[in-house]
Amino acid sequence: MVGGGPGSFIGSVHRLAARMDDHYELVAAALSADPEKNRRGAAELGIPRERTYLRFEEMATAEASRADGIEVVAIVTPNYLHFPMAKVFLEAGSHVICDKPITTTADDAKKLVELARDKKRIFALTHNYTGYPMVRQARAMVAAGELGTIRVVQVEYAQEWLATAVEATGQKQALWRTDPAQSGPAGTLADIGTHAYNLVRFVTQLECTEVCAEVNRFVPGRRLDDDVQVLLRFAGQARGMLWASQVATGHENNLKLRVYGDKAGLLWRQEDPNTLEFAQYQKPPAMIRRGAKASLPVAMHGIRVPAGHPEGYLEAFAQLYSDVAEQLEAIEESRAPSPYAQLVPTAEDGLDEMLFIEAVLASGADGATWKRLARIR
Amino acid sequence: MVGGGPGSFIGSVHRLAARMDDHYELVAAALSADPEKNRRGAAELGIPRERTYLRFEEMATAEASRADGIEVVAIVTPNYLHFPMAKVFLEAGSHVICDKPITTTADDAKKLVELARDKKRIFALTHNYTGYPMVRQARAMVAAGELGTIRVVQVEYAQEWLATAVEATGQKQALWRTDPAQSGPAGTLADIGTHAYNLVRFVTQLECTEVCAEVNRFVPGRRLDDDVQVLLRFAGQARGMLWASQVATGHENNLKLRVYGDKAGLLWRQEDPNTLEFAQYQKPPAMIRRGAKASLPVAMHGIRVPAGHPEGYLEAFAQLYSDVAEQLEAIEESRAPSPYAQLVPTAEDGLDEMLFIEAVLASGADGATWKRLARIR
Amino acid sequence: MVGGGPGSFIGSVHRLAARMDDHYELVAAALSADPEKNRRGAAELGIPRERTYLRFEEMATAEASRADGIEVVAIVTPNYLHFPMAKVFLEAGSHVICDKPITTTADDAKKLVELARDKKRIFALTHNYTGYPMVRQARAMVAAGELGTIRVVQVEYAQEWLATAVEATGQKQALWRTDPAQSGPAGTLADIGTHAYNLVRFVTQLECTEVCAEVNRFVPGRRLDDDVQVLLRFAGQARGMLWASQVATGHENNLKLRVYGDKAGLLWRQEDPNTLEFAQYQKPPAMIRRGAKASLPVAMHGIRVPAGHPEGYLEAFAQLYSDVAEQLEAIEESRAPSPYAQLVPTAEDGLDEMLFIEAVLASGADGATWKRLARIR
Amino acid sequence: MVGGGPGSFIGSVHRLAARMDDHYELVAAALSADPEKNRRGAAELGIPRERTYLRFEEMATAEASRADGIEVVAIVTPNYLHFPMAKVFLEAGSHVICDKPITTTADDAKKLVELARDKKRIFALTHNYTGYPMVRQARAMVAAGELGTIRVVQVEYAQEWLATAVEATGQKQALWRTDPAQSGPAGTLADIGTHAYNLVRFVTQLECTEVCAEVNRFVPGRRLDDDVQVLLRFAGQARGMLWASQVATGHENNLKLRVYGDKAGLLWRQEDPNTLEFAQYQKPPAMIRRGAKASLPVAMHGIRVPAGHPEGYLEAFAQLYSDVAEQLEAIEESRAPSPYAQLVPTAEDGLDEMLFIEAVLASGADGATWKRLARIR
Repeated sequence: MVGGGPGSFIGSVHRLAARMDDHYELVAAALSADPEKNRRGAAELGIPRERTYLRFEEMATAEASRADGIEVVAIVTPNYLHFPMAKVFLEAGSHVICDKPITTTADDAKKLVELARDKKRIFALTHNYTGYPMVRQARAMVAAGELGTIRVVQVEYAQEWLATAVEATGQKQALWRTDPAQSGPAGTLADIGTHAYNLVRFVTQLECTEVCAEVNRFVPGRRLDDDVQVLLRFAGQARGMLWASQVATGHENNLKLRVYGDKAGLLWRQEDPNTLEFAQYQKPPAMIRRGAKASLPVAMHGIRVPAGHPEGYLEAFAQLYSDVAEQLEAIEESRAPSPYAQLVPTAEDGLDEMLFIEAVLASGADGATWKRLARIR
Repeated sequence: MVGGGPGSFIGSVHRLAARMDDHYELVAAALSADPEKNRRGAAELGIPRERTYLRFEEMATAEASRADGIEVVAIVTPNYLHFPMAKVFLEAGSHVICDKPITTTADDAKKLVELARDKKRIFALTHNYTGYPMVRQARAMVAAGELGTIRVVQVEYAQEWLATAVEATGQKQALWRTDPAQSGPAGTLADIGTHAYNLVRFVTQLECTEVCAEVNRFVPGRRLDDDVQVLLRFAGQARGMLWASQVATGHENNLKLRVYGDKAGLLWRQEDPNTLEFAQYQKPPAMIRRGAKASLPVAMHGIRVPAGHPEGYLEAFAQLYSDVAEQLEAIEESRAPSPYAQLVPTAEDGLDEMLFIEAVLASGADGATWKRLARIR
Repeated sequence: MVGGGPGSFIGSVHRLAARMDDHYELVAAALSADPEKNRRGAAELGIPRERTYLRFEEMATAEASRADGIEVVAIVTPNYLHFPMAKVFLEAGSHVICDKPITTTADDAKKLVELARDKKRIFALTHNYTGYPMVRQARAMVAAGELGTIRVVQVEYAQEWLATAVEATGQKQALWRTDPAQSGPAGTLADIGTHAYNLVRFVTQLECTEVCAEVNRFVPGRRLDDDVQVLLRFAGQARGMLWASQVATGHENNLKLRVYGDKAGLLWRQEDPNTLEFAQYQKPPAMIRRGAKASLPVAMHGIRVPAGHPEGYLEAFAQLYSDVAEQLEAIEESRAPSPYAQLVPTAEDGLDEMLFIEAVLASGADGATWKRLARIR
Repeated sequence: MVGGGPGSFIGSVHRLAARMDDHYELVAAALSADPEKNRRGAAELGIPRERTYLRFEEMATAEASRADGIEVVAIVTPNYLHFPMAKVFLEAGSHVICDKPITTTADDAKKLVELARDKKRIFALTHNYTGYPMVRQARAMVAAGELGTIRVVQVEYAQEWLATAVEATGQKQALWRTDPAQSGPAGTLADIGTHAYNLVRFVTQLECTEVCAEVNRFVPGRRLDDDVQVLLRFAGQARGMLWASQVATGHENNLKLRVYGDKAGLLWRQEDPNTLEFAQYQKPPAMIRRGAKASLPVAMHGIRVPAGHPEGYLEAFAQLYSDVAEQLEAIEESRAPSPYAQLVPTAEDGLDEMLFIEAVLASGADGATWKRLARIR
């Protein structure tokens, strides 16, 4: 693991996710650039002294030269470090699990896509919401045509925690997320807007071609966007709206997706993740529950407890780790992993989201005019 | 009453709303241009033969010349007739209660505004959702500063009933609403988008200055928009999104408003209209109920049953009628009506919404670019 | 109308319910035993002086002797007056619409059943919750076997308004409801427990044979029960629980029914009355909405607005009035009313609920032991 | 671990719960009485051959004699084995984590209470629902007097999975739960009724003194109760109702608690466990969320992710394991554990629930008459 030292939020989430289904062992780390924190954090996690590294470059090479070196590295730092870290680990031959967004520029993302491809390494991007069983069920239902042709997509990700100048209080999570040097050119857009965008792409498989975006900075003194409101055009007829906000008073972590086809619509909310609402035209809405008889196989894959025993955020996150473990195993056994294990977002998805970010920022900077997403290839 | 003959939907709603609080008597009507339907409808409603008119112009003048002539006329026809009808009744000295949208052009709306002003007549526009007690409470709470400075407005009005070419089946409600000759240049936008817009304006009192809109027509063969997706700019810093759709599979009549200020946010949904969700920053959301102790006086005004006994669509509609009745009484008694009774939307609100419609249509026709709303004056 | 003078709650509800669908005219009344209030109330309602009566006996005979005398009387007084009033009006030949509970003793209820039968008069008991379309749909679904054999019934009616000694403040509604002389021997049990019981009987058609009941009086100084907790045995295998409380802090008017059969279960809540939740064994729960395509004909009968436009308490109440009007019309036309119009609760239902009350009180007085309901015949 | 071999449900839940917060290592096991399954299961879990035991008695003594022997054993077998297993492990000096219900008789439970006391060993009973932060918050709010004096308790635990004769299909979970030889004299009552009872006791701290219970067996051929309906009397004035059912069509795992005091009421539902609804008399209900600013310290203890990131069943289960770990650490360090870590249910709670089971069964067998719970001491 690189990053995730004492006081980190997402680092401990990754560790818990890795541990949950018992496929991983944490054996080496570069947790912090601060030598004392690095040492202390590693000791708490039981990482041996000789595999506790201060510099990630050193870790990449040292581990690569060990017979028992790491198979896969988890990168859980602020955004600006994702690229250099992922690069050296891929080059050293590690598989990579990287927090989102993949990089701070589409160019960097493209390089990682190519590097992972050249090196034939797994690059897993932890858009953890794709690990929720009901999200995967939604994707399968769309793919099976149960909604018909999609016309409208509505997605939102609303939080309230940055509704005041929290960064001015020195709060660590707020500090780096509102600092262009660490977060990159996008704030809320990179932090949660990318999740919303990725969720749309994952479930609908629709290609987003153009955006028109208001990129707002509401809190006085804030240096990055804290609210974005976007019109989306997709290949084909579908149209949509995306709203990501961290000044939405009253919301904790309200990621919500709605998709409307000519046959049916569906709704999923992260704060009630075990339910998928599915409504066929002129039929009573059905509440499909995780783990219940109506769940599709893709939604039964990997679940740990039956219907009515809610799984949450950590279980969804763990699903990605377990799916990567299955991919690793499949590589070892020279076989294909199950289609379910292949649902984990990749560097390509990361590049896709960077193109989205860049188009949104360009639109916002140009008075909220329409901008085409650059094509991946 | 003009319009509202056998088979009409909104006509019977208006009659019921007028009857609910027992302030009105229906004494004259021109219900239908079809002589037989007109006669039959009037007979069913117990309207005397001599006050059953085939042509509305005749009704306006005949009633004006009677000592016991109508005080107020209710116009409940397809949109294109609102203007000529309202005009002759105002000219004849009647007060007018008119269904929305006020006209099919802003120019016509402006004429009605001026005419009502010159004639000193009440012009009430039945944006019935403003009659809901919890909507009025929301407005009062915003005005009292309980949300702080408003930053974001999210409004949507989603229905599914036009997700197929219902008009091709001859269904009456669909037929006129999708026919430019009867509905005017806007379809879903005029039918329900105006309600959403009016609700924002009513609750927030924010002036909408610019729009950027996708005006979609999803159902093959449809002649008017059936889905609009709009970015809103308001005077000051507030930004917002408006979605109105009649192809939103799974939705019946989902009008929903959310307003986010720097101190608190609120949520109201028409399908659960007795609840107003109010969430202060970092406090547990509170569910304020119609009729309960926490209701403000404006929300207690006119309610008929206590908390927990749900009031619905018809009660909200009736509230407008009762408030107009209070206005009429106040005129008779040469006094000011209560501030509550003055909450009924007016011709000015109708003009405002026509300027919104025209800006949205212009934006849609110009590739979803930003258009300023013409100023009312 | 007898009862329902100035300050009354249920009197104005009845009047509004009668007016809603325009089948009634209020022409005579004995609104209050207080001469001044009686006169004032009648004047406000536009009842002519000569048909404003101080004593209800006088009204019964005087109206019976008029050619244009009342067809039907509405009795909306405290419980103890229901019996003497209903008796004289039935004897005078009026049809009767009476608020619940029908009387204060089963003996009196039995006399009214027989009198109405002898006189061939309609006796409608306003268990208004049976007028909700989704309640009627629930009944029809049970009757059609969609739930299979019923095993368990759970019903509750919870309010908070009497959680303190409100009667000590002089509040009128609390005063008579907690006074044995006016309410009879049962408090909360008579006031809302009867609604819960009636709802179970109406929807399931199961005969309740035995009860075991805790009859609680929680508020110091209160003279009648304010909370009852009852185990129910039905003919056949079904078992159930009924809870009625007016000290349930947090609840406004939470009447909720759940029925579980061996094939499916259903849930209906009065505070969200337009939805009926229906869940087949191992299938996703379906949310059936009033007015939508999945509604049965019985639930479409009489509805005024389409799905998504919520109807509430008053509309359900009005349904009973309209159904009685159809019954009256059918009598006049010597035909049978529609089966839907016959759903209105009758004096037999009133007797049934009095037997329930008496069994519950007997159980409570005997240390919460099992008591059989006396059989109706 | 004893029990929890291949195919077990609760065994893997315990293992995951133990692993989540990284306080445990699984080093020895007697997973199954079937030698092949035992060997295979242990191998899958990486347990060394020499610490894989076929007989639990052997494991208790062998581990006790090892310097690196187990500190604590997890017992995750069908009910009838809890007693003999817990006994030998306590006698051998192990701490015990045992699944509920503690035993199949109160006598056995009493012996374990005494044994644990004599041996000064921790006996933790996995009433896992007490591990939910919002349940602990509820307990703290009751204890702080925020509800005032408690009057009414309503608790239910409803599932549908045994609504048909699932045991006849050979389904393993159903088989042992409906078999008196394995489950003991109570079916649904022991399986989930105990959770409901324990939840009431945990949150309200009220002593339950008497019960009156219908003990139902609805499914033909079933050998144990599948539905119980109970009236509860508590020391003092409080009264309540408990319903546990596994034939409640439509329900997955609906454990729901409501408590009503003279000042406020609260509601918690296991299927939406991150929310605690709290309603003060005549105030708008407040939705208190796990992890949000309004959470009490007891509810912040041990949570892993912030508000809006739902935690679920496994996290609550893990909390008990982590709290036991803290207790173990405190013992080692000769200090008191935090008050939060002491919230884990004990053998005393297990005895308490056995007395409840026995009173309910006695009541049911005696025609649903009132039975006193035997006093613990």
